[in-house]
Amino acid sequence: MAIDKVWSSQISHRAGELCLGGIAARSLATNFGTPTFFLDEQDFRDRARAWKSALVGAFGDHSGNVYYAAKAFICTEVARWVAQSRIGLDVCTGGELAVALAAGFPPERMQVHGNNKSMAEISQAIEIGVGVIVVDSLIEIARVASIAKSLGKSQKILLRLTPGIEAHTHESIATAHEDVKFGFSIASGAAWEAILKVCTHKEIELIGFHSHIGSQILATDAFGVAADRVIELAAKFRDEFGYELAELDLGGGFGIAYLPGDVPLLPEIVLPALWTAVESACQKYRLGIPKVSIEPGRAIVGPAMFTLYEIGTIKKVILENGAERNYISVDGGMSDNIRTSLYGAQYTGIIANRNCSDELALSRVVGKHCETGDIVIRDIYLPVDVVPGDLFAVPATGAYGRSMASNYNHVPRPPVVAVIDGKARVILRRETPADLLRLDM
Amino acid sequence: MAIDKVWSSQISHRAGELCLGGIAARSLATNFGTPTFFLDEQDFRDRARAWKSALVGAFGDHSGNVYYAAKAFICTEVARWVAQSRIGLDVCTGGELAVALAAGFPPERMQVHGNNKSMAEISQAIEIGVGVIVVDSLIEIARVASIAKSLGKSQKILLRLTPGIEAHTHESIATAHEDVKFGFSIASGAAWEAILKVCTHKEIELIGFHSHIGSQILATDAFGVAADRVIELAAKFRDEFGYELAELDLGGGFGIAYLPGDVPLLPEIVLPALWTAVESACQKYRLGIPKVSIEPGRAIVGPAMFTLYEIGTIKKVILENGAERNYISVDGGMSDNIRTSLYGAQYTGIIANRNCSDELALSRVVGKHCETGDIVIRDIYLPVDVVPGDLFAVPATGAYGRSMASNYNHVPRPPVVAVIDGKARVILRRETPADLLRLDM
Repeated sequence: MAIDKVWSSQISHRAGELCLGGIAARSLATNFGTPTFFLDEQDFRDRARAWKSALVGAFGDHSGNVYYAAKAFICTEVARWVAQSRIGLDVCTGGELAVALAAGFPPERMQVHGNNKSMAEISQAIEIGVGVIVVDSLIEIARVASIAKSLGKSQKILLRLTPGIEAHTHESIATAHEDVKFGFSIASGAAWEAILKVCTHKEIELIGFHSHIGSQILATDAFGVAADRVIELAAKFRDEFGYELAELDLGGGFGIAYLPGDVPLLPEIVLPALWTAVESACQKYRLGIPKVSIEPGRAIVGPAMFTLYEIGTIKKVILENGAERNYISVDGGMSDNIRTSLYGAQYTGIIANRNCSDELALSRVVGKHCETGDIVIRDIYLPVDVVPGDLFAVPATGAYGRSMASNYNHVPRPPVVAVIDGKARVILRRETPADLLRLDM
Repeated sequence: MAIDKVWSSQISHRAGELCLGGIAARSLATNFGTPTFFLDEQDFRDRARAWKSALVGAFGDHSGNVYYAAKAFICTEVARWVAQSRIGLDVCTGGELAVALAAGFPPERMQVHGNNKSMAEISQAIEIGVGVIVVDSLIEIARVASIAKSLGKSQKILLRLTPGIEAHTHESIATAHEDVKFGFSIASGAAWEAILKVCTHKEIELIGFHSHIGSQILATDAFGVAADRVIELAAKFRDEFGYELAELDLGGGFGIAYLPGDVPLLPEIVLPALWTAVESACQKYRLGIPKVSIEPGRAIVGPAMFTLYEIGTIKKVILENGAERNYISVDGGMSDNIRTSLYGAQYTGIIANRNCSDELALSRVVGKHCETGDIVIRDIYLPVDVVPGDLFAVPATGAYGRSMASNYNHVPRPPVVAVIDGKARVILRRETPADLLRLDM
């Protein structure tokens, strides 16, 4: 049982100690060092399955694919889990494709994204037979067509559309929001122009449209608006070309809980809402219901991982209003979690190795980098009796934590350790000082 | 001759093509690929020498050290240049220390920073005999003392002070700004408490104070205020302990030009201003003038490097006001330059391979990552006739570009190629797909 929505399902508490799969935090730290990302494998697999089930449950015969968005976090072992979960994989660079191939991931279940795919990336994707390429620009239409032609192949594509909706966190702004690098604007006519261009290339098979409206979205309404606009264009396509497009990919962006009290956008909430929106739009535009796909990334891996740090120095600082703030330094920081400084993201965290005092102090959890902005948690109340050597666990770091990690200040990137059935194993090892020097000539 | 302050000294233009050390951009791209950081070695060495000369010129016998701040960018070859330039090196982690040692950098010319140095990092530093450790917290005083004692050594330290000044870019706020993780507050009494604590440990030799007031500072006034406050405390120390501290480190943060029109804080401007401030404060508090050190990082490597990208897709987007914006995608992005999205940093850039049209269009240069915020240059006017395959050069990316680089989206990190005397050589090689998989278990 999860003790809180911010923690994964196999997390428990025992005598004040955080445990994953029954293994206590101190034992995890002793065996694997800190900082380390611990990945709850059961939780990951369950979430992957839950998204698939919810899609099938809501859409039945109209279910397309669940594509796990590799950008949130991928390594070969996780790609194998995705394959075993019988869902698809969304990759957006040659590097992500290389990981998938190293894991033996079936190309036909991959979808290839990106606003600036290189010729080499497109060639490789078509050559190995990826299921779908999501095409993002007029230049790319020509590129995909010419490469497919030269390889004597036909390539299925989706066109990425900009439906003019910005959905971000709690806000949904359903007005023209077209000033982005991705996609073809429906409103400006760019999308229609792209459709006409695609139809001039017989090496490209347009199977449908794609729309992705944002990240960490916590309400379903904006997805409905996007579905309506994209389906309206699909109806126009049917009117013009006399047949219906088979597929619709509504993207990802499903929000998770970072702080206690956050209400995540769970699959059993999202998919019925998407069904209602798609069904009603199709009815409105007298269109058959297409196969609908989605792309959860964060929503699968985000809550499944936490970061375990060791606390180093602690310093009391007196604020201008006379109050005190405890600066608590951990042995990582912006190199393993850039989201706090990059997006102002908020996290919670707990002392993971023991029962602490009930008395709390205003605290700021900071990293060890030479930068004032190197903050893990800007404001949090933590026990007054924290001491160096205590362990500190930050939940919900699975998405865009390790995947955006850097070697800033030549800090080695942390490993990812998977835990299942009470056993822990390294699936992505920690960098060593030798790794940090391996590119030096 | 530099064509502009944003470019390094060995940059020239020939028939519309950007050249470094006489080698044209297209030739650089063909030989080393894109994206690549090109480092003007002569420029780097000249700037290192200029800071040293300006310090000696202004402070004479009172010159301390110029410490190159490794965090801006370091690799073993650059550490060798720093050593050859007869300046010191400021490192703040075991990783940066490892690079320095791999380069054979003399430990006695190193200064060790960091708010959360680990026991292992402190031990190694003392063991190899680094010149100075800049101590940042009470906990660290005890750590340094106990490690020095166990090694039978004495360690020179500076105490990092928070003089209550925030100097950032154009603004200098000389009021209490103590809410940071670094240093001991002078105003709160924390600094004095630290001094008293240091004096209880005979294994630590307090040689002076350290202050660092910010980053990318473009005016000298805040340094003067900081010097005054720190020197006032040094006078109090003299009054209490009957002798004067020998050293004062005023940190770095000297701003460079990112955009045409930016006026960088050049050594010949900064050092005389620091001398005036230090001399007048010492007179005011009747103190002998200490040896003064500084820590330029960005100011040495920042302007010496540019990033060369290849342009991929180009897309016109119609804005809400009816205007058009050209989205120009390059083959890198937030993985090799996070500063635009992290700090809202501004850069300029040029088409580097040919003469283009004089007609310009409002443009946004974006990367290839799957993220809307993946922007290299938010607003820039670029020629209307840009085409895929053109090369795009962004100057002043030497600091916090490669050093903060990530593998987000499994994009390999670019190499650093040094150019001097018309010859180019790789000093930090490009990552390969194999590198991206080497940590996978």
